Amino acid sequence: MATLQDITVAAALNILSAFIFFVAFAILRLQPFNDRVYFPKWYLKGLRTDPIHGGAFVRKFVNLDWRSYVRFLNWMPAALRMPELELIDHAGLDSVVYLRIYLIGLKIFVPIAFLAWAVLVPVNWTSTGLEAGLNNITSSDIDKLSISNVHSRSQRFWAHIVVAYAFTFWTCFVLLKEYEQVAAMRLQFLAAEKRRPDQFTVLVKNIPPDPDESVSELVEHFFLVNHPDNYLTHQVVYNANKLAKLVKKRKKLKNWLVYYQNKLERTSERPQIKTGCFGLCGDKVDAIDHHNTEIDKLTKEIALERDKVTNDPKSIMPAAFVSFKTRWGAAVCAQTQQTRNPTMWLTEWAPEPRDVYWSNLSIPYVSITVRRLIMAVAFFFLTFFFMIPIAIVQSLASIDGIRKVAPWLKPLIDIRFIKSFIQGFLPGIALKLFLIFLPTILMMMSKFEGFGSISSLERRAASRYYLFSFVNIFLGNILTGSAFEQLDSFIHQPANQYPITIGTAIPLKASFFITYIMVDGWAGIAAEVLMLKPLIIYHLKNFFLVKTEKDREEAMDAGSIGFNTGEPRIQLYILLGLVYAAVTPSVLPFIIIFFGLAYVVFRHQIINVYNQEYESGAAFWPDVHLRVVIALIVSQIVLMGLLTTKKAASSTPFLIALPILTIWFHLYCKGRFESAFVKYPLQEAVMKDTLERATEPNLNLKAYLQNAYVHPVLKDSIDDEDDEEANSHKWETESVTVPTKRQSRRNTPLPSRMSGASSSPSLPDAIRHQQEP
Amino acid sequence: MATLQDITVAAALNILSAFIFFVAFAILRLQPFNDRVYFPKWYLKGLRTDPIHGGAFVRKFVNLDWRSYVRFLNWMPAALRMPELELIDHAGLDSVVYLRIYLIGLKIFVPIAFLAWAVLVPVNWTSTGLEAGLNNITSSDIDKLSISNVHSRSQRFWAHIVVAYAFTFWTCFVLLKEYEQVAAMRLQFLAAEKRRPDQFTVLVKNIPPDPDESVSELVEHFFLVNHPDNYLTHQVVYNANKLAKLVKKRKKLKNWLVYYQNKLERTSERPQIKTGCFGLCGDKVDAIDHHNTEIDKLTKEIALERDKVTNDPKSIMPAAFVSFKTRWGAAVCAQTQQTRNPTMWLTEWAPEPRDVYWSNLSIPYVSITVRRLIMAVAFFFLTFFFMIPIAIVQSLASIDGIRKVAPWLKPLIDIRFIKSFIQGFLPGIALKLFLIFLPTILMMMSKFEGFGSISSLERRAASRYYLFSFVNIFLGNILTGSAFEQLDSFIHQPANQYPITIGTAIPLKASFFITYIMVDGWAGIAAEVLMLKPLIIYHLKNFFLVKTEKDREEAMDAGSIGFNTGEPRIQLYILLGLVYAAVTPSVLPFIIIFFGLAYVVFRHQIINVYNQEYESGAAFWPDVHLRVVIALIVSQIVLMGLLTTKKAASSTPFLIALPILTIWFHLYCKGRFESAFVKYPLQEAVMKDTLERATEPNLNLKAYLQNAYVHPVLKDSIDDEDDEEANSHKWETESVTVPTKRQSRRNTPLPSRMSGASSSPSLPDAIRHQQEP
Repeated sequence: MATLQDITVAAALNILSAFIFFVAFAILRLQPFNDRVYFPKWYLKGLRTDPIHGGAFVRKFVNLDWRSYVRFLNWMPAALRMPELELIDHAGLDSVVYLRIYLIGLKIFVPIAFLAWAVLVPVNWTSTGLEAGLNNITSSDIDKLSISNVHSRSQRFWAHIVVAYAFTFWTCFVLLKEYEQVAAMRLQFLAAEKRRPDQFTVLVKNIPPDPDESVSELVEHFFLVNHPDNYLTHQVVYNANKLAKLVKKRKKLKNWLVYYQNKLERTSERPQIKTGCFGLCGDKVDAIDHHNTEIDKLTKEIALERDKVTNDPKSIMPAAFVSFKTRWGAAVCAQTQQTRNPTMWLTEWAPEPRDVYWSNLSIPYVSITVRRLIMAVAFFFLTFFFMIPIAIVQSLASIDGIRKVAPWLKPLIDIRFIKSFIQGFLPGIALKLFLIFLPTILMMMSKFEGFGSISSLERRAASRYYLFSFVNIFLGNILTGSAFEQLDSFIHQPANQYPITIGTAIPLKASFFITYIMVDGWAGIAAEVLMLKPLIIYHLKNFFLVKTEKDREEAMDAGSIGFNTGEPRIQLYILLGLVYAAVTPSVLPFIIIFFGLAYVVFRHQIINVYNQEYESGAAFWPDVHLRVVIALIVSQIVLMGLLTTKKAASSTPFLIALPILTIWFHLYCKGRFESAFVKYPLQEAVMKDTLERATEPNLNLKAYLQNAYVHPVLKDSIDDEDDEEANSHKWETESVTVPTKRQSRRNTPLPSRMSGASSSPSLPDAIRHQQEP
Repeated sequence: MATLQDITVAAALNILSAFIFFVAFAILRLQPFNDRVYFPKWYLKGLRTDPIHGGAFVRKFVNLDWRSYVRFLNWMPAALRMPELELIDHAGLDSVVYLRIYLIGLKIFVPIAFLAWAVLVPVNWTSTGLEAGLNNITSSDIDKLSISNVHSRSQRFWAHIVVAYAFTFWTCFVLLKEYEQVAAMRLQFLAAEKRRPDQFTVLVKNIPPDPDESVSELVEHFFLVNHPDNYLTHQVVYNANKLAKLVKKRKKLKNWLVYYQNKLERTSERPQIKTGCFGLCGDKVDAIDHHNTEIDKLTKEIALERDKVTNDPKSIMPAAFVSFKTRWGAAVCAQTQQTRNPTMWLTEWAPEPRDVYWSNLSIPYVSITVRRLIMAVAFFFLTFFFMIPIAIVQSLASIDGIRKVAPWLKPLIDIRFIKSFIQGFLPGIALKLFLIFLPTILMMMSKFEGFGSISSLERRAASRYYLFSFVNIFLGNILTGSAFEQLDSFIHQPANQYPITIGTAIPLKASFFITYIMVDGWAGIAAEVLMLKPLIIYHLKNFFLVKTEKDREEAMDAGSIGFNTGEPRIQLYILLGLVYAAVTPSVLPFIIIFFGLAYVVFRHQIINVYNQEYESGAAFWPDVHLRVVIALIVSQIVLMGLLTTKKAASSTPFLIALPILTIWFHLYCKGRFESAFVKYPLQEAVMKDTLERATEPNLNLKAYLQNAYVHPVLKDSIDDEDDEEANSHKWETESVTVPTKRQSRRNTPLPSRMSGASSSPSLPDAIRHQQEP
């Protein structure tokens, strides 16, 4: 077990590395040639342009203003300055509510830490359980602060029980207030002034085939009959997956064309390539001509495919977006069952147009239930048996494995450097690669399950990721052996032994988790803000591909929050915090620092970097709430097990009440708030409709909704990619950055590009800078 | 363990006792003076009158026609003759679907029994596991048919596994078909031609208080705004609990008055009573005068209270029945959320007027969640710890206990007869009494939880009763010790030990459960048809209270199906059947006989006796389905445990797939059918509305709905009980026995009252009989 000194050294090292990351970030972000990497959000919104036009040549690339380096941590307060309402306008509700998860961490753990250090630390510290007891285990200073230091059968455990109650009530209180707040924010956001197509539209899936009518006619007749006063229009869904693939391919070819053209300009030599097997064999041809002809060929193919998609009735999927005259009509249709057979004419709120996951819209009901079953089984095996294939790979990647499989590599392996590389590095890489690809695997699993919107895909992947980390990071590090061995040992244990098994191991692992929080949490957050990968890729692209302003725009990779990986990671820290709060309070400060740091960093990233892919209106909150409640229950069970091993058996009845109350609290919250995330109250809809009718009596809603839900590749009738892009971009600007007249807008803290003094002067400042020659 | 002979003797005894019950029933039901006990349903429907008018005096009471006694089992085919559609008209959908539960038992177990006897019995019989193995346990012939007779590690277990798959698939197939059928029946029933108030009405609960408006105004304004095109009218709910109590008290006094008047007529002596403490002390007064004055006093009080209820705004509860112009409007309102706060303005389908449980309509949301928590905890203790108070009572009721508590009874106790009575009978009575009151206790728990309709109260009580019998009858008889001891031993066992513990004990208990099925099942069913309790009570009432035709009508106690006790009992037999199907197939014939017998008896009772209290449209089916699925999963787990003890470990993976597939099947069915029991499809509503508009363009719906949902005691404005009764009766006839024009009606098998030859001649026959002088 680590001593206090060990922890101090580790903390110092990690603080240092995090500090180096931050300094690197502070320097890099001030360089004008990195501007598009660190402030892409502002470019995407059209509120910032390249700092190319004026100044000396050097100044275009390097910031020479020494004053800006002095105040290099200024971005932190700047990130905190934008008010929440402003931020919702700027980045959407999803991002703002996502930030609140970090805030919840602070809200829960700061008071808990104070209480724990005020009550538990003195109680533990003044005990002598470790001195008196087992001398064979070397105890450290950290352990003297933990519950391990209290004698068995001590009356002092009552302090821990009372404090556990206080922790539970405080956490529930914070959760309740937060749920209330988020639900209100969501409803307010949905009822906000701006009109959005999804407020009027319902996604209809599983339309039964009809031999006499086309899908379009069928939909129209059905809704004219069953929603006679409300039906307005509808859009069928085309199966444009192949078309999308072709368009993507052409875009790639065009990139290569640009690359070769640039090469020609630089070297004045016509570049040549080979046509076969990845450019390694085949005939040599002129690269530019070759790509030009290929692109022409593809363009024709795309035109053909586009015709086919729009005219062939077979490419119409049995799904449609149905729009209504009023929000009331849409709310009614989304919440009701249409026909006897609840697996046909399924209606649900249409996701935002950006959020639609087009290829999943046509899966029939039976197929979906079968897919869910398959994925449930697959996920079980993934969680508990993923070590088996990795162990196989690792055994192959060992010296002996390679010798056996590929004997001709023997001379190479025997080189000392390569040998040590294989021994020390390769086995780790297999696991690391798996963990890197895990979110992608989980997303693919969700896609296979047939969810119809990107947000629901991410929510599903997030809950799977959470389960995976709960089993493999939390339990996996507490208990010994692989997940499968744990599963086996749990099956062979009595149920009342579970909390004891976990409870006994928990205090022993405190120092490990402290290190984990510092390495994965602190350094991870600092790496997030540095954005090394987008930085490198941007400069590579910039060097090889960028010719026009548009190309540069495309070279930017703003990224997004990544709910499916980010949220489960936060939840893991909340779980650690709650579990250790009553056991080893010394963990808490490290977690609080993580949450504080992460909050600032993510707020900065959301303001300046991330470009949200969709807006679900914080639909993920019930999941977040549920997982905190699960963490709370786990912490209570662990404490129960720990106190049992400490022979404080008379305390068990008091602790059993806690999980029961917590579950009840969850059910209460679910009944009280969850429907705000599933349904849309009619009263709100009526209010909004009435207001709109009064303010815009002549609104042509049909025209507004006509093309809102068209597959992105079909959006423009002109067969040109550029228009397409422009078009979709236009749409985005229309729906996302519709200008509001609110006063606070004027104070948007837009980072200036020339003066590095502060990253967020007020807007007039920024305009002045732009007006400078 | 019982031998084949023991079982044969027990079976013979039980068959004999059941036969005696049936003969007694056959004789008693033919006596005219029992007519109202055995055919009350027909009296309530007004299709049968008393056989008083004609014939000799003796014939009024005793049936002297010898021919009718010869064909004494004729009621059985007669009960089966009424077609299902006819039966729905006659007794409602609930009763018909309830009968289908017995049919499901037959459908599942008859093919399973054939397969088991064709495959498993030969496999078990030809094994020699019992002979070869443990000679210290005496084995019987029954055991030779069971899985116990197969050698450990035998390859013969593959037969059991294959058959278990066949059983599972067959059961799921039957369940699927049945769910489909019942859902279709329900939708057809709801969409049936007759108009019902609940089709247009929605129950609104948790109306928030408003300082400026009364509840009635508030409801009107709210729905005029939020359902502008659909709102028609509403009725507020009055808190008439006190009034109902007063009316009930007056009715009781009136009964006593009649009793004393009858006494006066018989003895010509004015009866006197004492006024204090249950008529044991106090002044002597004239009974008739006393009751007359008391009744007058109460009548005034009732009038006062009625005024108060209808005029005092405080007696209006925050709930209302809101009616809409169309079924579409009601369907929309019932399925949608009205306001931001999902705990206010809660809407749900209004239950049928008869089905409303009035006193629960005003409980606020928070209170309901707290009540649910309390009841969940209370039910846990009731299930696992109910033996503790009973053990205390039993220890008090023992000889020593009585000696200690009441030493003055010593001489009495020492009498030999009383001593043996106390020793042999009293301890059993405490348990028996508890079990008799258990359904009432469970119903009270459901009422406390705040469900708003009698049908949902009964459904809740049924699922609790099922859990209770699962733990205390199924597990309680398989394992040793009380429920609490079992719970304790389960907690201290590894999870993988559970199926083994149960699986080992299962084959040993086969003969016990066979006896249980015969005693509780066969004899219980036979006792059900004899209706001893209503028979005795009717004759007592008839002797002491009946003066007028109306009194006689009131003396009838038709009873009802009693879903809350009946359904869990059937489920217990289904559980036993599925568990023993693959283990000890000899149990199956006994279960099949139970289901066959029960089906005939309950069909007879539903046709002739039970008067359904409400009509929920088979809303209980999802519960029934779920419980059969649970039974299936339990049977699979038990088989898995059993095969593990038999060292057929390689079979486990094959068996693990079964519960997973079964759970998936349940989820599929839930998604596919459950909404038919929760929601009302809009398409159906529109079709019905359109049809109605075409056939009855001038319908005054408002008048039809105006008073549909008035508290029964407020129904008549005249302060007279008789009118009240007549009124509510009128309503019932109106809504339940509305005459249809269907052809099959003419063939209603109405039991004749004079000729006992057959209980179901055709209607013209019955009319002819009535026309006879």
